[in-house]
Amino acid sequence: MGKYVVGIDLGGTNIKAGIVEETSGMVIVSESIKTNSDKGMEDTFERIALLVDKMLKDSEIDKSKVNGVGMGIPGPVINGEIVTFFANFPWEKGLNIAKILEKKLNLPVKLGNDANVITLGEAWKGAAKGYKNVLGLTLGTGVGGGILIDGKILEGFRGAGAEVGHMKLVENGKLCGCGQQGCWEAYASATAIVKETINRFDENKFNLVWKNIDGNIKLLEAKHVFDAAKEEDRFAVEIIDYTAKYLAMGIGNLLNVLNPEIIIVGGGVALAGDFLFDKVKKELKKYALPVTLENIKIVQAKLGEDAGIVGAAALLEL
Amino acid sequence: MGKYVVGIDLGGTNIKAGIVEETSGMVIVSESIKTNSDKGMEDTFERIALLVDKMLKDSEIDKSKVNGVGMGIPGPVINGEIVTFFANFPWEKGLNIAKILEKKLNLPVKLGNDANVITLGEAWKGAAKGYKNVLGLTLGTGVGGGILIDGKILEGFRGAGAEVGHMKLVENGKLCGCGQQGCWEAYASATAIVKETINRFDENKFNLVWKNIDGNIKLLEAKHVFDAAKEEDRFAVEIIDYTAKYLAMGIGNLLNVLNPEIIIVGGGVALAGDFLFDKVKKELKKYALPVTLENIKIVQAKLGEDAGIVGAAALLEL
Repeated sequence: MGKYVVGIDLGGTNIKAGIVEETSGMVIVSESIKTNSDKGMEDTFERIALLVDKMLKDSEIDKSKVNGVGMGIPGPVINGEIVTFFANFPWEKGLNIAKILEKKLNLPVKLGNDANVITLGEAWKGAAKGYKNVLGLTLGTGVGGGILIDGKILEGFRGAGAEVGHMKLVENGKLCGCGQQGCWEAYASATAIVKETINRFDENKFNLVWKNIDGNIKLLEAKHVFDAAKEEDRFAVEIIDYTAKYLAMGIGNLLNVLNPEIIIVGGGVALAGDFLFDKVKKELKKYALPVTLENIKIVQAKLGEDAGIVGAAALLEL
Repeated sequence: MGKYVVGIDLGGTNIKAGIVEETSGMVIVSESIKTNSDKGMEDTFERIALLVDKMLKDSEIDKSKVNGVGMGIPGPVINGEIVTFFANFPWEKGLNIAKILEKKLNLPVKLGNDANVITLGEAWKGAAKGYKNVLGLTLGTGVGGGILIDGKILEGFRGAGAEVGHMKLVENGKLCGCGQQGCWEAYASATAIVKETINRFDENKFNLVWKNIDGNIKLLEAKHVFDAAKEEDRFAVEIIDYTAKYLAMGIGNLLNVLNPEIIIVGGGVALAGDFLFDKVKKELKKYALPVTLENIKIVQAKLGEDAGIVGAAALLEL
């Protein structure tokens, strides 16, 4: 029998936990519970410990066969153990959460920022397997980033490394959820595509996107725009070109700063696939130094739904 | 007697070499020769070897007391030994230059990109001494960058890490020497300040800068603008505010991506000191996430003229 790792994805609403088989990276069992952060850190961690014990018992896996527990945190993490702050909960700042959990779990615990661990997971068992210098991007509600340098997460001094979605690309540009202006994620996230499309509806309703959602903008998702663009709807193509331009500008900046070997793209926007990536690659020549484009690989993330659990587990393995 | 390290700064025109005392970081002797790259790599390296031998002989230092030779390269370096290409010379690409030099010098040799080694030198014996997560900026002809993660140079896959001067801050912006548009260095280098000032002379010659250079724009340096701004000349202050804005935008992006503990600023622009840094720090609040500004230090580089030699020597020490 092989060894196992427990991966936990601590989210604002739900906690997903799973047992990952070390060799295959397969999630052999997973469960989800509510975070209920308002009941306090102690209560949440207690329920996490119970959940881990239950999963191991149900799977008949002895703790001696478990390498440890990795947990993705919605906030900056220092040294794999200290949480600078939790982005969405008013829990105490600067605590060594790994130590607190180790006492409850009787297993080694390592923590990582949630966007960073997704990238680590892709390097362990996904699309970046074997690569050491990796840029991971999740283009969804926002633009999340993870950076691996020589195979290790770039945590930064306060744990806030790889907050790439908040690079400013436009001075006094679009307002971002962070309160600042001109952030990359205000231009290149799935949310940004939806907002840009709704704005453009003001000027133009004679297009395939509007038709396909029957004029109900509450239904609108980035996917509608990609689908219409793939059918060569001019309105949609212009929005995708606009998005590709800013995607390339942000990726180009990161290529110039980090010179990674591979870029892994996940999240809703990545589902557009080569249709979008080909446009981005073409635009990149305007923004990235040629040397950074030599042999660069830009590929879709592989881990999908399990990314949070497998990525958290990877904290024990890489 | 202590130990020594040889540091060499291979430039486009001149080669500066020095012997650095390990404990103090003092350059005890230094010399300069022409690069004469047109005579070929072999010829240049042969003369470097002769120069090193001569310096050691003149200083009566036995090779057994030398830890090795570090060399700053005008181009991307991989793994401290392979030069992807030389930026200004048509020398062969992708060679293991460290090995070639080791044979000639009979000493261990390590290489680093010139901008990176300057940052490494500051971490060894300069303003970033003891810090592990460092961003070094040289604001001169261009904007050079060096990044240390956990005390190590961020080289990148092809050696092109930390080419921060070519981050794009303005879409379709000012033309950069690299041939692309909107690069940070087209806004924040000493050269950029001079160019911006000359452009503004077209509209306004009734200012202290124009007066101080007697209308001879060939004399103009960034320092003239800083000096006039310090005397509250409105024309000059506006240019410095404009420069500070783009400096902050670029630094803010790097803070969000790298979350360093300290930023070391060198080069001609840095000589403006706190007058400029205070403006930049104020502007940073618009561009950098608050967590990246917690306890951040922004300080002037310390090594000055010796930065290239001491930085190269640091390759053997950190």
